[in-house]
Amino acid sequence: MRISNFNGGPGALPAEVLEEAARDMLDWQGTGMSVMENSHRGKKVMAMVKEAENDFRELLGLSEDWAVIFCQGGASLQFAMIAMNFAGPGGRCDYVNTGLWSTKAYKEAQICGAKPRLAASSEEDDFNHIPDAFDFDQDAKYVYITTNNTVRGTQWKKFPKGAQAPLVADMSSELLSRPIDLEPFGLIYGGAQKNVGPAGVTVAALRRDFADKARLDVPSMLSYPIYIKNDSMYNTPPVWSIYISGLTFKWLKNVVGGLANMAAINKAKSGALYEAIDSSGGFYHGTAAPGSRSLMNVTYRLPSEELEKRFKKEAAQNGLEGLGGHRSVGGIRASLYNAVAQEDVQKLVDFMGEFQRKNG
Amino acid sequence: MRISNFNGGPGALPAEVLEEAARDMLDWQGTGMSVMENSHRGKKVMAMVKEAENDFRELLGLSEDWAVIFCQGGASLQFAMIAMNFAGPGGRCDYVNTGLWSTKAYKEAQICGAKPRLAASSEEDDFNHIPDAFDFDQDAKYVYITTNNTVRGTQWKKFPKGAQAPLVADMSSELLSRPIDLEPFGLIYGGAQKNVGPAGVTVAALRRDFADKARLDVPSMLSYPIYIKNDSMYNTPPVWSIYISGLTFKWLKNVVGGLANMAAINKAKSGALYEAIDSSGGFYHGTAAPGSRSLMNVTYRLPSEELEKRFKKEAAQNGLEGLGGHRSVGGIRASLYNAVAQEDVQKLVDFMGEFQRKNG
Repeated sequence: MRISNFNGGPGALPAEVLEEAARDMLDWQGTGMSVMENSHRGKKVMAMVKEAENDFRELLGLSEDWAVIFCQGGASLQFAMIAMNFAGPGGRCDYVNTGLWSTKAYKEAQICGAKPRLAASSEEDDFNHIPDAFDFDQDAKYVYITTNNTVRGTQWKKFPKGAQAPLVADMSSELLSRPIDLEPFGLIYGGAQKNVGPAGVTVAALRRDFADKARLDVPSMLSYPIYIKNDSMYNTPPVWSIYISGLTFKWLKNVVGGLANMAAINKAKSGALYEAIDSSGGFYHGTAAPGSRSLMNVTYRLPSEELEKRFKKEAAQNGLEGLGGHRSVGGIRASLYNAVAQEDVQKLVDFMGEFQRKNG
Repeated sequence: MRISNFNGGPGALPAEVLEEAARDMLDWQGTGMSVMENSHRGKKVMAMVKEAENDFRELLGLSEDWAVIFCQGGASLQFAMIAMNFAGPGGRCDYVNTGLWSTKAYKEAQICGAKPRLAASSEEDDFNHIPDAFDFDQDAKYVYITTNNTVRGTQWKKFPKGAQAPLVADMSSELLSRPIDLEPFGLIYGGAQKNVGPAGVTVAALRRDFADKARLDVPSMLSYPIYIKNDSMYNTPPVWSIYISGLTFKWLKNVVGGLANMAAINKAKSGALYEAIDSSGGFYHGTAAPGSRSLMNVTYRLPSEELEKRFKKEAAQNGLEGLGGHRSVGGIRASLYNAVAQEDVQKLVDFMGEFQRKNG
């Protein structure tokens, strides 16, 4: 029996995607092999990867001004790649610190010898909101942001202006959850396992005029220009993870009907849950400032850690899995990624009402 | 219908592994989720990864003197990681050049600022053999070798002595195909997609006293000590690829019966194919020197490129797939990885006899 999966990442995948993958496991596209056993340089895998790229482009409305690549190593490897490619030793770059992941990105830039600088931070307020005032370095090579913060449950609603440098954005936990106006961005990326596929692949889109500024002295597997030049096949790409992501892109296009529809569904899902929190008379209280609340990760607390523990345990007994907050902050977190259905959220809301009646 | 898969990598996987993966796709271990949707920090995934590690240890006979980790990025990322961790800027290191992949490893060390040096090379002989004389730098931090060369079809039979530094070995295309005496090694690794699993995960084993010499100034996702300290979970690991590799390890243990058995089977498979080549009166001729012939990748030529083209085409029509040589050298290559069965090889041998009768 399938459960309701609120995991923070790896997260839920559409059942239709899994069913197709299972069906084609021993004989994919009539090749007499699984997709994993096919050569990545064979026509069918090349076409599959290209189709995944094109569907990703179509979903986000990316023109040919953008290159789309598939990397490995998750967001954490992007932290280093961004600094190595676009800042380099002593290179200046701005970071907006909105929590754990942007803090890590900043530190990784330091390890790479770049000179990162904070353009804004909400650390003093326990990262409960997205900053709205910025001190940009006009000589920065880029401005780094994390558009959705899985740990604290905050999300950027509009993107900062006033920087001369393009935005570089970690969108791991919201990629393809809503349409994005990409005008201020030079690079966006996401580890697939939060919202669009399995762990093991990171999708990145680079505006070509920004990509052209990349340094050429970095190792091949860390060089964006090498990924772009080789259509992500400098070496063997993570074929399975691209395949599953590609099936998810098709699901988004054909079943959901695109990102505007997906955003409406995600708003309805998170709206129902925030409403349940806000109408609980304080039994449940959200940790993110209302203006910064994430549509993807709804973080909240109960009156005591003991109640939170019981909440998670009883939720799991009722088929509601993955509700623990990030290990760095605790509390409750319901991740409402694309593949989490409205009815899963309704089950959670119902459970929350019942739990409060028994324990409130 | 399943075909006979002689792909050079990604290569064949055991049908039993694929059948289990398909069966458990929507509900893995009673979690109500696929393995891809489970949290990597959940007990079941943590246990699965640990079990994969332990089975890998058992198969290779790795004691607790060794650390075992799962990385991403394939061999090509290891090329950089090895130089960054163990040589560093200006650091001296020896390379034995036996073909495309060791050449790439050498160049990547240069990009990373290390000072690699050739201890031996068979480039003058078109890489048709493994060198047996070496000029070791006594100050080198390591000696880098590629134990099996997929492109040229050569394989090390015994490992060099006389170096003060530990061997660092790319075993991608032979990992777990035979028992290995690990005494001279400090680090071995393999991209899984050649012989033990799907693309997207690289298994590495480091002798702990060698790992302790790693530099600490490298980015986190490129730092061996960080992988070791975090049990490969500094960030989200490539769960699916580890899972499939783990199932393959179990198949090797329980169905095949360990690496000695596997080596005997692999010797029989490659022996049958080399015998067919050598007894063809020159119609088929192997490209590797007899003393350096690989058990994994059997490379050979036909009298003309036109015949090779027809050979590959008719082979594919007979359910024998993936017989093209590497794009850098052409010719024919039959990769006989662990999951390729003796009966697949027999089909190929039969086809070769018939093809020669018609075209010889």
